[in-house]
Amino acid sequence: MDFVSQYKGRVDQALEKFFSYKMAGKRGIEKEAISKLREFTMRGGKRIRPLFMILGYWLNSDIDDKIVSASVSLELMQSYLLIHDDIIDQSEVRRGGPAFHKMFGYADRVSEGVSIVCADLSDAFSHEALLEVDFVPDRLNSAMRLMSEIVEQTGVGQLMDITLSLGNDMSLDDVTAIHKYKTAQYTVNGPMKMGATLSGYRDPEKIDEYGIPLGIAFQIQDDILGMFGNEKELGKSVVSDFEEGKKTHLILYTYEMAKRGDVEFIKDRLGKKGISGSDFQRVKDIIENSGALDKTRELANSYYEHAVSSINGLTDSPTKRSQLRAMADLMVRRVS
Amino acid sequence: MDFVSQYKGRVDQALEKFFSYKMAGKRGIEKEAISKLREFTMRGGKRIRPLFMILGYWLNSDIDDKIVSASVSLELMQSYLLIHDDIIDQSEVRRGGPAFHKMFGYADRVSEGVSIVCADLSDAFSHEALLEVDFVPDRLNSAMRLMSEIVEQTGVGQLMDITLSLGNDMSLDDVTAIHKYKTAQYTVNGPMKMGATLSGYRDPEKIDEYGIPLGIAFQIQDDILGMFGNEKELGKSVVSDFEEGKKTHLILYTYEMAKRGDVEFIKDRLGKKGISGSDFQRVKDIIENSGALDKTRELANSYYEHAVSSINGLTDSPTKRSQLRAMADLMVRRVS
Repeated sequence: MDFVSQYKGRVDQALEKFFSYKMAGKRGIEKEAISKLREFTMRGGKRIRPLFMILGYWLNSDIDDKIVSASVSLELMQSYLLIHDDIIDQSEVRRGGPAFHKMFGYADRVSEGVSIVCADLSDAFSHEALLEVDFVPDRLNSAMRLMSEIVEQTGVGQLMDITLSLGNDMSLDDVTAIHKYKTAQYTVNGPMKMGATLSGYRDPEKIDEYGIPLGIAFQIQDDILGMFGNEKELGKSVVSDFEEGKKTHLILYTYEMAKRGDVEFIKDRLGKKGISGSDFQRVKDIIENSGALDKTRELANSYYEHAVSSINGLTDSPTKRSQLRAMADLMVRRVS
Repeated sequence: MDFVSQYKGRVDQALEKFFSYKMAGKRGIEKEAISKLREFTMRGGKRIRPLFMILGYWLNSDIDDKIVSASVSLELMQSYLLIHDDIIDQSEVRRGGPAFHKMFGYADRVSEGVSIVCADLSDAFSHEALLEVDFVPDRLNSAMRLMSEIVEQTGVGQLMDITLSLGNDMSLDDVTAIHKYKTAQYTVNGPMKMGATLSGYRDPEKIDEYGIPLGIAFQIQDDILGMFGNEKELGKSVVSDFEEGKKTHLILYTYEMAKRGDVEFIKDRLGKKGISGSDFQRVKDIIENSGALDKTRELANSYYEHAVSSINGLTDSPTKRSQLRAMADLMVRRVS
């Protein structure tokens, strides 16, 4: 079995074990809250963050039960942040089911209030899951520090995203900065550095050269798939990013590269619900024919190449180098 | 200068220092977020949680700059939870100024979204503030574990409060349990155990006998002052708890002890805005004449006595014993 399937399975088992331990002896609203957090967390997700944490640990140590147990902390953190995000965005669907604040039978505002607190519980759980594993104390301290930095940087990215999306002056640099904070640090680089730190890896800062560009490339590829992907393979609508008005490299490059009338055509429709099939096809044609699609792909590829070129500096092991390469391919060359 | 004034001043200084360090070099929305968190956090508060943390540390160590720096983590955590609470309750005022989500000029939902994320930043800061102090690593990990337990228990108390308040079946035991989770663990016991743990105090569990009953007594006294206190000394309205429909020991004892017609008089008015001065006076008279006020005072006093009787088991030092006694008096015998 390959690395991803093998460890995804073990992470899922460790998550189930954590929730069972937390549920034991609980009753009333506490039991309901934990049970809903369990359902929400187990419902889906590719466990990318735990996988990168395990990969980071592997740089300096054999993979053991300890790092698998510790890695569930990142899925609990993910649930904490997703629940808040969905309330903020008033999203109704997540991971093929209802958003967390749609899982309660209370009036809307009460359900949202209860969900804000349940997310905060998941935050506390994420710290507990990491702290209860028996690592060398000062390594554990350092990993905790990294985890707080991840939450901080993700929050900063989220604030930039919310407030810059309100105006019309989001720049390409802003989009890249948001990708760096909200995706690269949070999904790839932070988790990997946490794992490396827990294994006593000598120079975790070196991982920045792999994790940050790979995370940015991953997010750009995600934006491309969000418009040009296959709905069946993605399992989600390819118009939703556009209807939400998401300003991506694709869109901003098109504003620079397309003819004025075509740009107006897109601006008139971006962020509005109910675009017709033929209008959406024209939007995609404009993006493609202006050269913006190719330029975005090239940008993703240059970040990917940067990440891949750093691999030999991270480890001497051919097996580990090849797995770092495989993860990079999986993140960026994917179709869903 | 007495213990409280002396260390409250030092905690305020350490908080200012933390925010200055965090603000340095920041710009845009990140700077605005931190600046508003600073204003909100510095605006008020008695710094009770840091004081109990310092007191817990003092049980086994001289008070030093390290514990003062570490104690700011609890005020940052307090801001995190207060911001979420005020969004959940749609409160507009806090600490003599606007609630955090009323400090932004965006549309209401955007301001609330931005505030949820700013609160999450303050949460990350609370961990960072503690982790950056140079304590023995395994003591630091134990203190971090306690901090997560505090957040978890406060969340459980908050969930009980929100959901039980919706129905009519909140019992005296429920009220006491909510006081235990939301106030006793969070305000007195947890902070004190964190401090004791950081100083290497041998048996932090013993503190439960002081911190939990003292915290419950403090909250019951708070409920009494919330109706029978002097508005000038309190700096807040004495009808707001009643108008919010807060089910307290005072109210639930009155339901048990007052005449049926008097109970109906209260039930008809509890939780409704705009009670007249004469009706509110009659409510207070009913509570007092039914014996519920005395019974509630006795309950607070029995918790207070329990806490005080545990002091000699915590330390042999007459100075420290006397300070633990003084803090208990301050918390429960206060008039504001």
